[in-house]
Amino acid sequence: MTAIALFALPTPALADTHFDNVEGISIHRDGSVDRFAGMVVDEEGRIVQLLDFGDRPEGEVDYYEDMQGRVVIPGLIDSHAHVMSLGLSKLTLDLSQTKSLEEAQALVAEYSARFPNRPWLVGRGWNQEIWGLGRFPTAAELDAVTDRPIVLERVDGHAVWANSAALRAAGITARTPDPEGGRIVRLAGSREPSGVLVDNAMALVNAQVPPPRPEDRDLAFHEAQQEFFSHGVTAVADMGTAIEDWMTFRRAGDTGRLQLRVMSYAASVPEMLLIGGTGPTTWLYEDRLRLNGVKLWLDGALGSRGAVLKEDYHDDVGNRGLQVINGTQLRNLMSRAAMDGFQVAIHAIGDGANAEALAAIDQLSADFTGDRRWRIEHAQIVDPVDIPLFSQHGIIASMQPVHQTSDRLMAEARLGPDRLAGAYAWRSIAATGAPLAFGSDAPVEAADALEGLAVAISRTDANGEPLGGWRPEEAVSRETALAAYTAGGAYAGFAEGRFGSLAVGERADFLVLDDDPLILNADMLRDVNILQTWIAGRRVWQAEEAE
Amino acid sequence: MTAIALFALPTPALADTHFDNVEGISIHRDGSVDRFAGMVVDEEGRIVQLLDFGDRPEGEVDYYEDMQGRVVIPGLIDSHAHVMSLGLSKLTLDLSQTKSLEEAQALVAEYSARFPNRPWLVGRGWNQEIWGLGRFPTAAELDAVTDRPIVLERVDGHAVWANSAALRAAGITARTPDPEGGRIVRLAGSREPSGVLVDNAMALVNAQVPPPRPEDRDLAFHEAQQEFFSHGVTAVADMGTAIEDWMTFRRAGDTGRLQLRVMSYAASVPEMLLIGGTGPTTWLYEDRLRLNGVKLWLDGALGSRGAVLKEDYHDDVGNRGLQVINGTQLRNLMSRAAMDGFQVAIHAIGDGANAEALAAIDQLSADFTGDRRWRIEHAQIVDPVDIPLFSQHGIIASMQPVHQTSDRLMAEARLGPDRLAGAYAWRSIAATGAPLAFGSDAPVEAADALEGLAVAISRTDANGEPLGGWRPEEAVSRETALAAYTAGGAYAGFAEGRFGSLAVGERADFLVLDDDPLILNADMLRDVNILQTWIAGRRVWQAEEAE
Repeated sequence: MTAIALFALPTPALADTHFDNVEGISIHRDGSVDRFAGMVVDEEGRIVQLLDFGDRPEGEVDYYEDMQGRVVIPGLIDSHAHVMSLGLSKLTLDLSQTKSLEEAQALVAEYSARFPNRPWLVGRGWNQEIWGLGRFPTAAELDAVTDRPIVLERVDGHAVWANSAALRAAGITARTPDPEGGRIVRLAGSREPSGVLVDNAMALVNAQVPPPRPEDRDLAFHEAQQEFFSHGVTAVADMGTAIEDWMTFRRAGDTGRLQLRVMSYAASVPEMLLIGGTGPTTWLYEDRLRLNGVKLWLDGALGSRGAVLKEDYHDDVGNRGLQVINGTQLRNLMSRAAMDGFQVAIHAIGDGANAEALAAIDQLSADFTGDRRWRIEHAQIVDPVDIPLFSQHGIIASMQPVHQTSDRLMAEARLGPDRLAGAYAWRSIAATGAPLAFGSDAPVEAADALEGLAVAISRTDANGEPLGGWRPEEAVSRETALAAYTAGGAYAGFAEGRFGSLAVGERADFLVLDDDPLILNADMLRDVNILQTWIAGRRVWQAEEAE
Repeated sequence: MTAIALFALPTPALADTHFDNVEGISIHRDGSVDRFAGMVVDEEGRIVQLLDFGDRPEGEVDYYEDMQGRVVIPGLIDSHAHVMSLGLSKLTLDLSQTKSLEEAQALVAEYSARFPNRPWLVGRGWNQEIWGLGRFPTAAELDAVTDRPIVLERVDGHAVWANSAALRAAGITARTPDPEGGRIVRLAGSREPSGVLVDNAMALVNAQVPPPRPEDRDLAFHEAQQEFFSHGVTAVADMGTAIEDWMTFRRAGDTGRLQLRVMSYAASVPEMLLIGGTGPTTWLYEDRLRLNGVKLWLDGALGSRGAVLKEDYHDDVGNRGLQVINGTQLRNLMSRAAMDGFQVAIHAIGDGANAEALAAIDQLSADFTGDRRWRIEHAQIVDPVDIPLFSQHGIIASMQPVHQTSDRLMAEARLGPDRLAGAYAWRSIAATGAPLAFGSDAPVEAADALEGLAVAISRTDANGEPLGGWRPEEAVSRETALAAYTAGGAYAGFAEGRFGSLAVGERADFLVLDDDPLILNADMLRDVNILQTWIAGRRVWQAEEAE
């Protein structure tokens, strides 16, 4: 990875550039498409003209780019991601592909050398079964490659492997008793800790890991940006921005390293007020950063049976999930945000939580009129009787197509066969007139927006399964899907007119593809390559083997 | 082109302006002075030419300002102030000038109407003795003018007067017992609280006052800016910036309301790291904001006998003050800051604290070489044997002249007659070659930099007392004093070359005065009027009755 230019200007002035010989697509929020053959972008990266075949630019241009007839579409907008979590996960050592203990040790040594100043090393993904080890690995086997404290989570998340420095930092010795619900694995024939800690014993070491340092955060942001660009994502809604995250974004902006556009939703009302003060921030750094509002968590997730359901879990009778805040708290927090014009995005996964969120929005809309753009994040399981409520108050359904493929078997188990009619019900919700905004939930899922597009139009996973799609009646058209990943995402973040459509007056954020996504089926879409990613008329990413 | 200009740019572009007919003074850090008769300022507010009498600008200018032969000096730099505390104090109701209960009630009513949305009202300065009331005022007398909770501190800080809403919020009833060391004043012949709470009972109500809201902070910043401009202060070192303060400065910068230049020193190492991350921020908003480093508190104040002295307090045998952090903690915090290039400013008032700070800087300078500009804030009482240590490592003595006049009688009491040789020893410290930076410590003292200049050259207070000055051998020359309030302050904040001298290449921050401060004695200096204050070639303040 190349060094970061620390003191570059936010955006050096460019003169007008003519992008010629383009198979260009502008898309609007309603899914309507304009085709164009060229565009002129001014020195601030804004589109000043879209040209038909044979048109010449009006006025002089200073630069000329021949795009060689390639497909150009608007940069994709990921409307639900966790930018810093994605970036920090990229800085974590990944052992999931290792086939032997020796291979893991070699990766640890390389990682340790790559980050010589990091006080703690953290990783995940090891599996001694795959290694054919016949036992857990030991602290000594890590001590052999690094003397800095290191803690590595097993692939299933139920154990960690630590070295002696980490055990020392945690004060774990032969005399340390196993905690309730956890086990300190001991060396054979002794009380000495072996280096592996199971379940509740993991926290003994994990609690010692210091928070990321500012330089780690800066590097993580850089990694996240690159990851998004490689997937054609040029703007993102950051869902749950902590104050440390915000300061990282600002450092990047202040020093010219912020290229990605970030629409931020604070992780709490106090952080929202600390950052925004009396209301959303202005658009900063030439439309690259804005605090829009706040993310509120209403329920948990389906996998952990925390999603709030109207009826019992099919596979856990008596359990209806866990509401994180009650209805009064939800309304109070929504009011606090709305009274100063902050936008509200409510995490709601289960049908109970979605019903509560819809009811709360309906009630608050009486007091908080105007263009509020209430968002429901995930909207995964909605009772069919509630789906029509999405037509009210301009509620935005912010959904993540890939969750459908990852979760479908689990959803069937949790809900049973009779309560799936409103599950991942993209088409039904869109049919109410509710604006859609699609995203990834990265790093929970990969930040792969093209895969999201393929899922959205097919209800099949990356392997094309199940054949014909899961509940395929809820797939959406190519145009609807692309709009939900572009102009719809801009609208959901109050960014329309600034970016998202490739329209005149907007910033020139675009992708160069090797095929046209609006004429392909899902399998073919999965083979499309992103060749280049551009933001504000500047190329920010290029495939390694450009044709 | 359809550019959307929803929000104005922080600084609208100006074209070149010729300021003609000036009696201009440039001053350098060493006190040397250049005189000029005109200047040309470019569209970014930078001085591109200084003109002698009769010179014409080179090249074309777009605007012409006839300054009518007035004196122009560099904008003053307050090197030690608390910007947000000053601003918030301006938003607090001041009852200190009231002559009767009725007058106080009228001011409360007016104040309540001025801030209709503020959940709590806060004020200070009342004195029932001056009112001739013969008793404390009552809650009912406040209830008559506002039903929002209000708490007003007595002039001596030893009692508060609250209304019924405030008493209710604090849960104070007839059944509430007096706290240890405090008294709830009761209505005659009853246990009912009267509304006045003495000493330790004050906290019962004060603890209920919510922190300022973002809009209060924004308004407070505006008030502070205006206060500084009215005193000719165009840049300030903010000593102890809390994260909320920083976010307020950024909001002002982001929305074009930041005019004052703020060199910020975080209130703690965690806040320093949160804001700056891997080092000082860049200069933001066209040289208007930078996080330079951190302020560390080593001891308390002389008045409360918290300043750390080498020997016992003369008026409190056995007491040598209170060191807030020990020497090891000090060095650890200094190292943490210095390792990432943050500047360190150490609050040290007593001779013991100054000796500790000087020793710590000496030790750390071995590891942290280069241009560090270690600052000692206040440096009020220095053991004469330690004064030569200021010549080492380029230590900056950041001192507040007016403290000398406010504190002189107290200093005599605290130190006795034989330990005053190193008290407020400006000339002796300057003679070591240590750079000086003068400031106000506002709101502890008024933000009145011209008064500071008058004190610095005379060691007399605003009434000209004592005759001939207190320990007048420590007064400095007019040029030294003005340099410590301008170019010296810029250097102390790593801002030389950006502002502070009125030199070519710097921002045009200047004052228009009705007399020349470099030819006046202290009494005459106290009569000088600031007619206008300019920052970056734009007028930000003007006296109400400009001549």
